[in-house]
Amino acid sequence: MKRRDFIKTAAALGTAATLGGCTREQIEGKRAFHTSRQKRVKLKLATSWPAHFPIMGTGVERFAQRVKAMSGGSLEIKVYPKNILVPALAVFDATSSGQIDAFHSGPYYWKGKNPAFALFSGLPMGMVASELIAWMKYGGGYDLWRELYAKYNLYPMMGGNTGVQMGGWFRKPIKSLGDLKGLKMRIPGLGGEVMARLGVNPILLPAGEIYTALERGTIDATEWVGPALDIRMGFYKVAPYYYTGWHEPGSVLELTFNKARFDKLSPEHQAILQTAADQLNNEMYHEFLDQNARALKKLKALGVKIYNFPKAVDEAAKKAVMEVVADQSAKSADFKRVYASMASYYRLVKPWTDISEARYLNIR
Amino acid sequence: MKRRDFIKTAAALGTAATLGGCTREQIEGKRAFHTSRQKRVKLKLATSWPAHFPIMGTGVERFAQRVKAMSGGSLEIKVYPKNILVPALAVFDATSSGQIDAFHSGPYYWKGKNPAFALFSGLPMGMVASELIAWMKYGGGYDLWRELYAKYNLYPMMGGNTGVQMGGWFRKPIKSLGDLKGLKMRIPGLGGEVMARLGVNPILLPAGEIYTALERGTIDATEWVGPALDIRMGFYKVAPYYYTGWHEPGSVLELTFNKARFDKLSPEHQAILQTAADQLNNEMYHEFLDQNARALKKLKALGVKIYNFPKAVDEAAKKAVMEVVADQSAKSADFKRVYASMASYYRLVKPWTDISEARYLNIR
Repeated sequence: MKRRDFIKTAAALGTAATLGGCTREQIEGKRAFHTSRQKRVKLKLATSWPAHFPIMGTGVERFAQRVKAMSGGSLEIKVYPKNILVPALAVFDATSSGQIDAFHSGPYYWKGKNPAFALFSGLPMGMVASELIAWMKYGGGYDLWRELYAKYNLYPMMGGNTGVQMGGWFRKPIKSLGDLKGLKMRIPGLGGEVMARLGVNPILLPAGEIYTALERGTIDATEWVGPALDIRMGFYKVAPYYYTGWHEPGSVLELTFNKARFDKLSPEHQAILQTAADQLNNEMYHEFLDQNARALKKLKALGVKIYNFPKAVDEAAKKAVMEVVADQSAKSADFKRVYASMASYYRLVKPWTDISEARYLNIR
Repeated sequence: MKRRDFIKTAAALGTAATLGGCTREQIEGKRAFHTSRQKRVKLKLATSWPAHFPIMGTGVERFAQRVKAMSGGSLEIKVYPKNILVPALAVFDATSSGQIDAFHSGPYYWKGKNPAFALFSGLPMGMVASELIAWMKYGGGYDLWRELYAKYNLYPMMGGNTGVQMGGWFRKPIKSLGDLKGLKMRIPGLGGEVMARLGVNPILLPAGEIYTALERGTIDATEWVGPALDIRMGFYKVAPYYYTGWHEPGSVLELTFNKARFDKLSPEHQAILQTAADQLNNEMYHEFLDQNARALKKLKALGVKIYNFPKAVDEAAKKAVMEVVADQSAKSADFKRVYASMASYYRLVKPWTDISEARYLNIR
């Protein structure tokens, strides 16, 4: 039976039951039914991504479809791409105030509100996606994130992960640490702060202006995400040196709700949103894996070559990360506390990753 | 409001509406309600694990709780540990025949029915968990698995992943390929077939007999899963050489339903089961990661040392895997077809894993 027909039939039976002056349970005898008169709820969710943006945008759309299906239509999430209802980077405030009910974005965007928020996206040279997820769930990460977001009337859940991001596209090869000196590179966040300590001049540019800036030499390099999203930007045509990365080793995306609104939802709807968000978080990671693999193959066919930074750059970056962490920790007690939790979990999990996934990927 | 109170209130309001001869919608005016008269369904699910078995067993119990919460109690899954309703390895047949509705186990257990089924658990020296999941979803793996299981009236979903398993516990160190010759090792599945080609004598033993056999020297080595489950078996006391692994690089566990039963469920219940299974699949992987890390720390505190097989063993194992694959492919057209799909996806995904996760884990 189609869903529409099922609803019609149920409604018709309901009317008959009422007319007869007795309940449906009485009419149907032994057939046990659960009467769930679930209040119909509609939630507005805005993203920081363009309409139908691959993986990040389409993933959220599938999430909304799943929530609707699981709730029998009683919970509808209307997804608004960036700048339709609120500007891309106004989603945090709009959800905090209750103008909208939820948003999909990345916690590093809100480091201006609290430097600690950047850490919930991950740390350069730090944990990979699987380790960050385990930290959130079993290492205290979620507790800290939810405590700090509660001050903004927000309830965050992980809502996707990019996996290890590429280091970026360079117009000239980087053969030594010295080659980074004075380089103008579009790179935001903690990665930008680390690069700055290696002599790079980090630039912020809107997405639509990066290609032209790179083509004209206004900038010398840019990072983006990974092959799947990078190939669409065409950077390979003007900055052919594609470097592997360490500045975003598993960026956590977020699906965050207005806390008061979420708390008022029924236990069913809360359970549906929790489960669907956790499903989305992992599905997006695996879709990135698949799409990056396919796009890498295409980029190679287009002649793109992959390079690794020299060892001296990696080592200098590790030192710079610790400097950035010390700096931020001195300025922000929240940053210090969240970093301490992350660092403690990293010390726990890394020895296992080293002898399992890392070892195996080297020998297979 | 507590769930119980909510149901009571709704029932009371429902009665009032019936008595007044009009619907609740009419009484409540503007408040829109969705009437979902979801049929109450109870499903019996048997596992191949003991009651409350860590991670694998407890994960399935949480899955059942989530399904109940999401469905507002209309979908209940009663979880039976092994040997309560059906023997541990009879769950496939019991679900196929409709004696029970679903099971949680591992596809390698059914290779006697079809050699290809072993591949859905993964391949020695093959893909890791994230790659296997991407293959299932985006590379044709699920299509093949569901096509082959449909012949048994079964509908499989992934229901967990162990991550990279350890190579096992050895009474003496393995310093050369020659040290494996004649070794009696408890190791099942394709891993056992590969080890046999390296000179090992693979033994099958019930879980309860392994420790004593190892202690008495009846066997020289055993593999199990990873630190979290291994530590409970006490193997470190009698076989102190703990080796890293390649024989089960990301074993897929399954949550499989009787197909006819699943097809008859409402679209809501189907969506709830699909989403909850996918959530479980990833949650179990991350719980293994966390628990393995914690147990490894304990094992090290107990003095356990970690060893890698010599390079000659790794290389001989890779060759042996290809021989086993050729052998099985010659005997089974299904094995050949599933392996071809896996191998094709491995060639696609490995170059990306190599420059992202694998590269990054080496330099961080």
